[in-house]
Amino acid sequence: MYKYEELKVIINKAIRNISLDQETEKLFEPVRYIMSAGGKRLRPVLSLMACNLFDDKVENAILPAVGLEVFHNFTLVHDDIMDEATLRRGAATVHNKWDNKQAILSGDVMAFIANDCMMHAHEEILPDILKVYNKAAVEVCMGQQMDMEFEEMNFVSISDYMRMIELKTAVLIAASLKIGAILGGAGSKDTNTLYSFGINLGLAFQIQDDLLDTFGDSGTFGKNIGGDIVANKKTILLIKALELASGDQHRMLSEQIKAKGFNPQEKIDSVISVYKELNIQEEIENLVSRYTEKAYSLLMELDIADERKEALRELASNLLDRNK
Amino acid sequence: MYKYEELKVIINKAIRNISLDQETEKLFEPVRYIMSAGGKRLRPVLSLMACNLFDDKVENAILPAVGLEVFHNFTLVHDDIMDEATLRRGAATVHNKWDNKQAILSGDVMAFIANDCMMHAHEEILPDILKVYNKAAVEVCMGQQMDMEFEEMNFVSISDYMRMIELKTAVLIAASLKIGAILGGAGSKDTNTLYSFGINLGLAFQIQDDLLDTFGDSGTFGKNIGGDIVANKKTILLIKALELASGDQHRMLSEQIKAKGFNPQEKIDSVISVYKELNIQEEIENLVSRYTEKAYSLLMELDIADERKEALRELASNLLDRNK
Repeated sequence: MYKYEELKVIINKAIRNISLDQETEKLFEPVRYIMSAGGKRLRPVLSLMACNLFDDKVENAILPAVGLEVFHNFTLVHDDIMDEATLRRGAATVHNKWDNKQAILSGDVMAFIANDCMMHAHEEILPDILKVYNKAAVEVCMGQQMDMEFEEMNFVSISDYMRMIELKTAVLIAASLKIGAILGGAGSKDTNTLYSFGINLGLAFQIQDDLLDTFGDSGTFGKNIGGDIVANKKTILLIKALELASGDQHRMLSEQIKAKGFNPQEKIDSVISVYKELNIQEEIENLVSRYTEKAYSLLMELDIADERKEALRELASNLLDRNK
Repeated sequence: MYKYEELKVIINKAIRNISLDQETEKLFEPVRYIMSAGGKRLRPVLSLMACNLFDDKVENAILPAVGLEVFHNFTLVHDDIMDEATLRRGAATVHNKWDNKQAILSGDVMAFIANDCMMHAHEEILPDILKVYNKAAVEVCMGQQMDMEFEEMNFVSISDYMRMIELKTAVLIAASLKIGAILGGAGSKDTNTLYSFGINLGLAFQIQDDLLDTFGDSGTFGKNIGGDIVANKKTILLIKALELASGDQHRMLSEQIKAKGFNPQEKIDSVISVYKELNIQEEIENLVSRYTEKAYSLLMELDIADERKEALRELASNLLDRNK
């Protein structure tokens, strides 16, 4: 069976080989730029791993897996315009390096390049693959919509937050696993189990991401600690803290959220001090563990030999232990 | 066989019945808005007409035809952002009524709603349908890229202009016809002939559009005459005029293009006077006739009874005689 790094090499090679029309070079330059910027290649690797659970060969799953990565990068290009982000993976975002018009149009064409890649699935299973892919694509847009709406809201409930990250992050991870499994010849029980595994893994992963932004080690995590606090992002930490806070603590958090012209480090320290009083780190770590355990238990339900599940279990464990 | 108006009623009903998720209402509001704004429904009607050439029933072709209209409207939503257009069919554009972020995201989800519609094609022909659709979708993006690049260029050749309108307008009309024909059970010779018919019809239609903007009757055409001249748009009229102009005429056109703080009506009159000296109207009408004749001759090649071709011939004739 293949290891993560081997599958990443396969995916990166296939990405370099995507054939793009030569005629309108400027349309495709940003596509090459974002696609070659690297990243974990999490979705396509998960898809190939899911295929590899049921089939020793993964060749037939490579192009659809690349399609999932192209789709993911399409959402990054457009989300970065909407979020007015200037940097992504340490490099200029597409709309920053070119402009908004070019980022809209080059993003658009990526949606159809992704379609092209998905269409390389064998005709017999093509309708199934496209249904799973397309449902996820619509849901990712719905997740981004919720995320944008949260920015304008004073109060976000935990259940709304969980639904947002399910749509924005977890469904594409789940769909990647399910598509890989279908391509590997899995039956519908196993493909659905892997989808549920992906949802739980995706939720755990996204919650962990919120946790690391505040309580991570900046050297390992690769981002500045406390960025979410400074930006007043409605993370699961803040939502949970507002839910658990006493009158005084609630007032202090609200003041920090409304503060203008503040010293960033003082703001981070004040908010973290409330988080510590409320045991937020432990609360949220428990939540991550709950989704992780659920994911592992779903993996056990798969109708294949346990040793075949090791790569996926190890990947999940590495993903969720990024700070350790 | 169905008539244009009957097919338009069928399409409008199917558009009203598109099922959109209830969960993120604000994502789908702009989709309903742009889809209910009307228009000729040219692409889906052409698709159903092509189906109807080969099959008395068009039911199986309705949802893919709606997908073509959703795709077309997706390009309008994003093109209007890129062109900073405030009005479309007399109503506020999506990014004007909402904002750019919402127009990007609601546009994006339309690309996947279009996919969903296309997937209603019967499994046996689904790969063929998707290949035709997806190729056209990529090419429409390429056409928009060329159109954007033309704005920054001092000189555009006639062949570059023709290629741009082929990609931006004609390929989707051609693909709509081909997809309808495949759904109607046509063989590959006829589907390819209809594709070529669509390319020629689309080119004639777009050139006619340029012609009407300058030489049309404002009452019938529904736009202000001379808008393209005021905006310095690189239309086939201007490109042809610059090609044919003598030294003095070339200088006059160039001065008008560079002029700032001009009186719009004076600019229109000056440019039209050069166009008249050069017989541009006749030149371009001849070009429209050439593509129209080519389209009609392709229609004759179809391996079906001539009386079945009447609806398509009549539609083409009405489209190209919008000013008469």
